[in-house]
Amino acid sequence: MNSFGSIFRITTWGESHGKAIGVVIDGCPPNIKIDEAEIQKELDRRRPGQSNIVTPRKEEDRVEILSGVFEGRTTGTPLSMMVWNSDAKSKDYSKIKDTYRPSHADFTYQAKYGIRDHRGGGRASARETIGRVAAGAIAKKILAEQKIQVIAYVSQVYHLVGDIDPEKVTRQQVEKNAIRCPDPKAAKEMIALIERVKKAGDSVGGIVECVVKNPSIGLGSPVFEKLEARLAQAMLSIPATKGFEVGEGFGSVLFTGSEHNDNFTTKEGKIVTISNRSGGIQGGISNGMPIFFRVAFKPTASIVKDQETVTKNGKKTNLKIEGRHDPCVIPRAVPIVEAMTALVLVDELLKQKAIKE
Amino acid sequence: MNSFGSIFRITTWGESHGKAIGVVIDGCPPNIKIDEAEIQKELDRRRPGQSNIVTPRKEEDRVEILSGVFEGRTTGTPLSMMVWNSDAKSKDYSKIKDTYRPSHADFTYQAKYGIRDHRGGGRASARETIGRVAAGAIAKKILAEQKIQVIAYVSQVYHLVGDIDPEKVTRQQVEKNAIRCPDPKAAKEMIALIERVKKAGDSVGGIVECVVKNPSIGLGSPVFEKLEARLAQAMLSIPATKGFEVGEGFGSVLFTGSEHNDNFTTKEGKIVTISNRSGGIQGGISNGMPIFFRVAFKPTASIVKDQETVTKNGKKTNLKIEGRHDPCVIPRAVPIVEAMTALVLVDELLKQKAIKE
Amino acid sequence: MNSFGSIFRITTWGESHGKAIGVVIDGCPPNIKIDEAEIQKELDRRRPGQSNIVTPRKEEDRVEILSGVFEGRTTGTPLSMMVWNSDAKSKDYSKIKDTYRPSHADFTYQAKYGIRDHRGGGRASARETIGRVAAGAIAKKILAEQKIQVIAYVSQVYHLVGDIDPEKVTRQQVEKNAIRCPDPKAAKEMIALIERVKKAGDSVGGIVECVVKNPSIGLGSPVFEKLEARLAQAMLSIPATKGFEVGEGFGSVLFTGSEHNDNFTTKEGKIVTISNRSGGIQGGISNGMPIFFRVAFKPTASIVKDQETVTKNGKKTNLKIEGRHDPCVIPRAVPIVEAMTALVLVDELLKQKAIKE
Amino acid sequence: MNSFGSIFRITTWGESHGKAIGVVIDGCPPNIKIDEAEIQKELDRRRPGQSNIVTPRKEEDRVEILSGVFEGRTTGTPLSMMVWNSDAKSKDYSKIKDTYRPSHADFTYQAKYGIRDHRGGGRASARETIGRVAAGAIAKKILAEQKIQVIAYVSQVYHLVGDIDPEKVTRQQVEKNAIRCPDPKAAKEMIALIERVKKAGDSVGGIVECVVKNPSIGLGSPVFEKLEARLAQAMLSIPATKGFEVGEGFGSVLFTGSEHNDNFTTKEGKIVTISNRSGGIQGGISNGMPIFFRVAFKPTASIVKDQETVTKNGKKTNLKIEGRHDPCVIPRAVPIVEAMTALVLVDELLKQKAIKE
Repeated sequence: MNSFGSIFRITTWGESHGKAIGVVIDGCPPNIKIDEAEIQKELDRRRPGQSNIVTPRKEEDRVEILSGVFEGRTTGTPLSMMVWNSDAKSKDYSKIKDTYRPSHADFTYQAKYGIRDHRGGGRASARETIGRVAAGAIAKKILAEQKIQVIAYVSQVYHLVGDIDPEKVTRQQVEKNAIRCPDPKAAKEMIALIERVKKAGDSVGGIVECVVKNPSIGLGSPVFEKLEARLAQAMLSIPATKGFEVGEGFGSVLFTGSEHNDNFTTKEGKIVTISNRSGGIQGGISNGMPIFFRVAFKPTASIVKDQETVTKNGKKTNLKIEGRHDPCVIPRAVPIVEAMTALVLVDELLKQKAIKE
Repeated sequence: MNSFGSIFRITTWGESHGKAIGVVIDGCPPNIKIDEAEIQKELDRRRPGQSNIVTPRKEEDRVEILSGVFEGRTTGTPLSMMVWNSDAKSKDYSKIKDTYRPSHADFTYQAKYGIRDHRGGGRASARETIGRVAAGAIAKKILAEQKIQVIAYVSQVYHLVGDIDPEKVTRQQVEKNAIRCPDPKAAKEMIALIERVKKAGDSVGGIVECVVKNPSIGLGSPVFEKLEARLAQAMLSIPATKGFEVGEGFGSVLFTGSEHNDNFTTKEGKIVTISNRSGGIQGGISNGMPIFFRVAFKPTASIVKDQETVTKNGKKTNLKIEGRHDPCVIPRAVPIVEAMTALVLVDELLKQKAIKE
Repeated sequence: MNSFGSIFRITTWGESHGKAIGVVIDGCPPNIKIDEAEIQKELDRRRPGQSNIVTPRKEEDRVEILSGVFEGRTTGTPLSMMVWNSDAKSKDYSKIKDTYRPSHADFTYQAKYGIRDHRGGGRASARETIGRVAAGAIAKKILAEQKIQVIAYVSQVYHLVGDIDPEKVTRQQVEKNAIRCPDPKAAKEMIALIERVKKAGDSVGGIVECVVKNPSIGLGSPVFEKLEARLAQAMLSIPATKGFEVGEGFGSVLFTGSEHNDNFTTKEGKIVTISNRSGGIQGGISNGMPIFFRVAFKPTASIVKDQETVTKNGKKTNLKIEGRHDPCVIPRAVPIVEAMTALVLVDELLKQKAIKE
Repeated sequence: MNSFGSIFRITTWGESHGKAIGVVIDGCPPNIKIDEAEIQKELDRRRPGQSNIVTPRKEEDRVEILSGVFEGRTTGTPLSMMVWNSDAKSKDYSKIKDTYRPSHADFTYQAKYGIRDHRGGGRASARETIGRVAAGAIAKKILAEQKIQVIAYVSQVYHLVGDIDPEKVTRQQVEKNAIRCPDPKAAKEMIALIERVKKAGDSVGGIVECVVKNPSIGLGSPVFEKLEARLAQAMLSIPATKGFEVGEGFGSVLFTGSEHNDNFTTKEGKIVTISNRSGGIQGGISNGMPIFFRVAFKPTASIVKDQETVTKNGKKTNLKIEGRHDPCVIPRAVPIVEAMTALVLVDELLKQKAIKE
């Protein structure tokens, strides 16, 4: 389904080259101050054409709020937001109408539905995430009222790894460069690498890390809706993602239990853990320590280089994708990771309010 | 919530040291032949006390079907299954009533609910997974009718990595040794390692891989219920998991797009991909190639070694956990990973049936 | 929440005097031919200003499909539809900004949310049903493919009761007069009555009956989603409804069991019931006989007559509602009842497909 | 599905003549004091064999709590409750194995699922409601903490109507006689009528009214989950129900708007309505006035009298149902109506807590 969340629930709709893209938020608490400019700011972080390492498509992506807000505040009724698709060059895609692009959703959509909107990937396009980012902007406002902050950033591109302390990262550091890596030296190298890859008509992937500072204690629930399980679903629902890990993640395998366990102590009268290998979650529930996780993005499937593939009828053919594409999606993925994180957290926050005395 | 799935939906209930543990399956198609022995067989794979590298607790875990089956077949009504808790030595846990075990759910449950059943971890105990494994056994039956096979196995313990070709692994190979690693040489070393760790009063983690052979094409859906997103949630809902990756996973970062893309070709008249770096899923939907993913398990939190911690009231204290615990959970995690995988697949299979012409 | 349905799920959004009103359909099967004109036709049946017994507001209510349709067919992705609010005279409502209209939602919205969009009833306005009717038009198309027909009509206004055989009613008969009552004589009297009531500045209610011809057998499920339970929720979710009854309904109380039971027989080789007092549903599941139910609508709350009420601050005051309102909503309720019925049936049809062999 | 509720969600399972009947409550707030005796008391009100106007079956229906309660309090984890089926005379039902009982679910279950547990109606048996009543007992406890009281009673049997003021009815009055009608004179006549009907081998139905005293303001939500819509679904999910009406219900049709509207005034500083024709709900949301609704129950389908019907293969046959059945279900329906009402209210109460400042 195209909905996410149980109390604070979003439903996204729209294809890359349809008339518009949008989102409906259901269950948004009333009386939240809404500033269209704040939402726009998040969309601008996601927008193509921000720098020369991302796609040069000039999409304005101007958000319009259609319902659920009255005199600048949410009313508790569904909040509908929309962005018109303006820069839709449908002709770019006529060529691939009957040709399956490798590692795209062309073949699977056709097989699943017996029909697909082939223009620009249709629903599989990353444009779908516009609705998530718009909704995430509102979720972030709600979190900000509880002083909870969500910061994502690029920690790795191909083999280049930033030297970053997640607990100290600031939004300003992240936004300082086109690649959104808070380590300026690594950022420079990453940008140079992407430019080389772009020239070669190829693409690369990378890792986005995310830290939640000052999370409430008690978010998430014991079994299927463990906080990390919901975050994992949220992250793997972002296009091009291939992995999720929380705390020490796959690296936890190389610890013994006595090394990995987060011993408890007290600090300023509060119970805290000395280490934070768990990434702020124990038994599926946040323990108040920073929540920390990482998301792997594969290299963009759209490349200029010649590729072997088949047509709808199984005829072998060669394909050269000529549209304007990102040689590396991950700087634009940063606000998406933040949005999905904020959506999970707000939903869990409201759930916890429901049962708490 | 304690439910998983939308059409084929399970609800698990029960605490480690309560009266019983169980599951209700809602939405199970009618006329599926049910053989209690088959369900029991899966539970026996999960059961403690199978070998000397897992906990020696002797729990019988005898499954009882209470509803939804008539004359050996499902009726389409809820299928309720239960296992009585017999070997519940509650006294073992009196000591930790007010002491928070590091990296357990004690502190977070108490903070979230203001109350907790401290005996054996209560709801946070891995005993909760009994219901999942029982339900998964039925899901596997439904998959088997479609010739879909789910096989999980241990591929890594601590630093020891098996040499395994996922597409060739058989259930027999997996079940041949106590660690459930289909590489016999690695299995031997893994077992030796775990025995050393056990003697040291410590624990280790590892990686469970899972392959789905002959999956239907078209499972999963475009956005929030991408097949990999649902699998990620399913896997991260298993106790002690810290990471999930599909296809090349985190490793995909070290490919360029031209290397990583799975080019299409045809084989015996069918469209297939030449490589399978995507792990059988593109755009969130299965493409018919084997589905392949990996799950990271941290080292068991319950260790005999002395640990620093605090009590409920924030007083510092030392803790020595004396119960009988697994020095390494992952051989017992294998059937749980399979069960959760089967539950996702059956649910998606039924969803696809609903909309397919 | 603002969603309805589990497989075929709609989400409506929008306020009476906001920018627009809309609906998102999630789970619509692919390859359904969509004709915007057919949807428009249903909206026109719901639209104000159709005759002089309903409100003279001239709302165009022109539907726009924004996503989910490609080359005239559904793609299986969310179908977003929207209608701009054009005739929004917000000044009409400034007077009642702080005054609670009797039997409207003003007081309860304010109490629930601490804020409300007072213009024209905001979300509580019957304009909200535009989205339902648009979605219902698509649901009807899917039902039509199975030769299932949904027909609603007015059977009673105030004390005037039509003489109607539900199984023989045709859409043409219903659409022949402004009140949508297939008994032409009663229709005439009903219209005359409403005109008198209108002159008196008052309003009346009535009963809408609905018949489903040629329903599939097996729709609905045993317990909480009994077909009549879902229809009851659907009907009572329509503004101004006060009651629902299926088959003999409240009248069944005046039968004995031997009189009320629908004995089985066969007809053309099929098992059918001789009588149909159950209204086509037994044990929550359709039995193939016509489904038949009735919905009570209270008299419109908006009346011109002077009323006593209080302001937001509890000050007593008198109120004269001057907007343009329906003296009787029920002719416009007919397409809404049909839409909600179609939405329930399609959802159940898809559910049944999912589990059926 | 077999679940009801979104935050406080119950799942019932079990067939009439299976091993057991049960319910799982998910989302129950922690720290609610649970007294097994209180739950048992509600089950005893539902139990057969209470008097000679109901079925003489002697089912003990002894409830057993299996999880979710620790030291007498709920823990926030799933609460599983079960009742063993002891008095299951399966032989009673062998006769009707292949014969469809009129107005029962035999035919529809068989048609839907292709299989059914024919013993005693299987899942369609009113025994299924045991789980609802047990869960409702806990819901009532939560409501009692908010001083919200739910009282249902029989107001009509066949043509006999009690003279009852819903706002003054007490539980004691209701429990004073076997028919659960608070008008003692009518009660006597009703009992006499049912005894006559029983002798004749026939059955009758009736009306159960329900009043919610001191409801919170703000329960329910604007559109599909209007409080009356949820109550309507809840009531029509009870076996043998045929109608639901709230406030003046179908009678509202015989009022004009100026007569029907509930004018506002103030009382002890609070905004209240002068009349309460709306039945305590406006715009789908409770306004603090008593909530009042009525439920129609058809005459019991199981009658001793000879009936014409067909077998599974369409052969005409005669049927005489010989089991022990209720000539009138409605005194036993009273606690079921209360339970379903309490389940709706608690779920809405928790939902409201989630979004409220």
